[in-house]
Amino acid sequence: MDTISENRCFGGTQGVYRHASDATGTDMTFGLFLPAEAADGPVPVLWYLSGLTCTHENAMVKAGAQQWAAEQGIALVFPDTSPRGPGVPDDAAYDLGQGAGFYVNATQDPWAEHFQMWSYVTDELPRALFSRFALDEGRQAITGHSMGGHGALTIAMHFPDRFASVSAFAPICNPMESDWGRKQFTAYLGPNTALWEAHDATVLMRARGFPGPVLIDTGTADQFGNHLGTEAFAAALAARRQHATLRLQPGYDHSYFFVSTFMEDHVSFHAEALYGVTE
Amino acid sequence: MDTISENRCFGGTQGVYRHASDATGTDMTFGLFLPAEAADGPVPVLWYLSGLTCTHENAMVKAGAQQWAAEQGIALVFPDTSPRGPGVPDDAAYDLGQGAGFYVNATQDPWAEHFQMWSYVTDELPRALFSRFALDEGRQAITGHSMGGHGALTIAMHFPDRFASVSAFAPICNPMESDWGRKQFTAYLGPNTALWEAHDATVLMRARGFPGPVLIDTGTADQFGNHLGTEAFAAALAARRQHATLRLQPGYDHSYFFVSTFMEDHVSFHAEALYGVTE
Repeated sequence: MDTISENRCFGGTQGVYRHASDATGTDMTFGLFLPAEAADGPVPVLWYLSGLTCTHENAMVKAGAQQWAAEQGIALVFPDTSPRGPGVPDDAAYDLGQGAGFYVNATQDPWAEHFQMWSYVTDELPRALFSRFALDEGRQAITGHSMGGHGALTIAMHFPDRFASVSAFAPICNPMESDWGRKQFTAYLGPNTALWEAHDATVLMRARGFPGPVLIDTGTADQFGNHLGTEAFAAALAARRQHATLRLQPGYDHSYFFVSTFMEDHVSFHAEALYGVTE
Repeated sequence: MDTISENRCFGGTQGVYRHASDATGTDMTFGLFLPAEAADGPVPVLWYLSGLTCTHENAMVKAGAQQWAAEQGIALVFPDTSPRGPGVPDDAAYDLGQGAGFYVNATQDPWAEHFQMWSYVTDELPRALFSRFALDEGRQAITGHSMGGHGALTIAMHFPDRFASVSAFAPICNPMESDWGRKQFTAYLGPNTALWEAHDATVLMRARGFPGPVLIDTGTADQFGNHLGTEAFAAALAARRQHATLRLQPGYDHSYFFVSTFMEDHVSFHAEALYGVTE
């Protein structure tokens, strides 16, 4: 694993690292914020999955999460959103191919060879992290933005014992019924929609839910609101009687100005779950 | 004036605007954060001047200032660092020409026609802002990073009645003695070093000081530390008995990870001066 950079940040260290991935068959780059407490032993981990067009870097520099993670003594992981590089297939559209892995394992050509982001984020990267850094595998939580919110919700519901809590900012939460979903699932997973259901948060919420708390923030002025499926997911939360908070934030859009505004709340929410604090 | 974007952010609005500048002879773009309180009347203003290579955007998305400005009810202005565009001269080096205006009025060719950033930031942009937005001209403060710290310190000392307080993150504060200064002042102002002195914070601090409080943060691991002139400025502060706090922050470098870490302190510092609060 190569260290690309390490910067002191809110008393801890914001690092960027690169490693060879067996899952994607490429080098993968990720960001990791370690709070000062990591010098004394393993700290809890909050995963942050990013949205379309993002690399590991966007949230790391724009979401303002480090200050709250530092305050709570929690590490932050910022994976990339897809494999990248000259040998990796891509598409002219921003919402398919590089920067748009959708946190699935592709089964269809030309994507199947490299686009194995589900395995990368749920298996390979965790193993690489927990073997190398002072991170507590027993205390993990997960969040994400837009496509990354989709990833956070679906991964959390597949690994209910791994994550104490899940949250999302403007998540894509019903991709089977959205232009942000049908196109990508067709390309990556093929036309059999039964195979898509494992990656649709609304379907998963209806079918199994999540044992911990769920927090969702979505702006009422989200310019991509019609792609998110918030109403279907809201109905699924209610139908399941899921322990959840869904907040529709007046006037906020899909940008990182929205994400950063509510980041403190999300980190506090996860800290409560990770540390078992009840207010 | 054209509105490029407006995003809801920490209860206020992060806007980006473009206007034709007489000073630079180009269109200029700037960022303006208005806290919610601006809906009820003019709010105090904190100017943030950016460093080499930056546009109006870097600090606006990476410094994490809006949350603290929102908390204090203060507006933030993020000017660009130079004129830009195909008709504007540039240099292959990152530290001269576009993105490197150094907050001076150039007198030398080819720069003199457009590089009039002193007039733009101290005269034209303020007039444009105060005539259009709910900003209180009587309550202003100024800060900046690196080259922008140089700008903040020199402008504050030239306009002591305008600014209640001045702070800077890793400022270039003795450019006459630095590779970040001699080259640019020679290019923009010509070889007569007597004309440079009006733009050297250390010279100005020795000669006149500042009537309000000064706060400086610089990292001990700043990779550009040898270009900053911190030791000369520190000596000038002490010699003048300037009301000032100079903090050397252990392990921090020159990045926005450093800036964002201490942003809360800087906004609080300015809020105290702007609102006349004493703790």
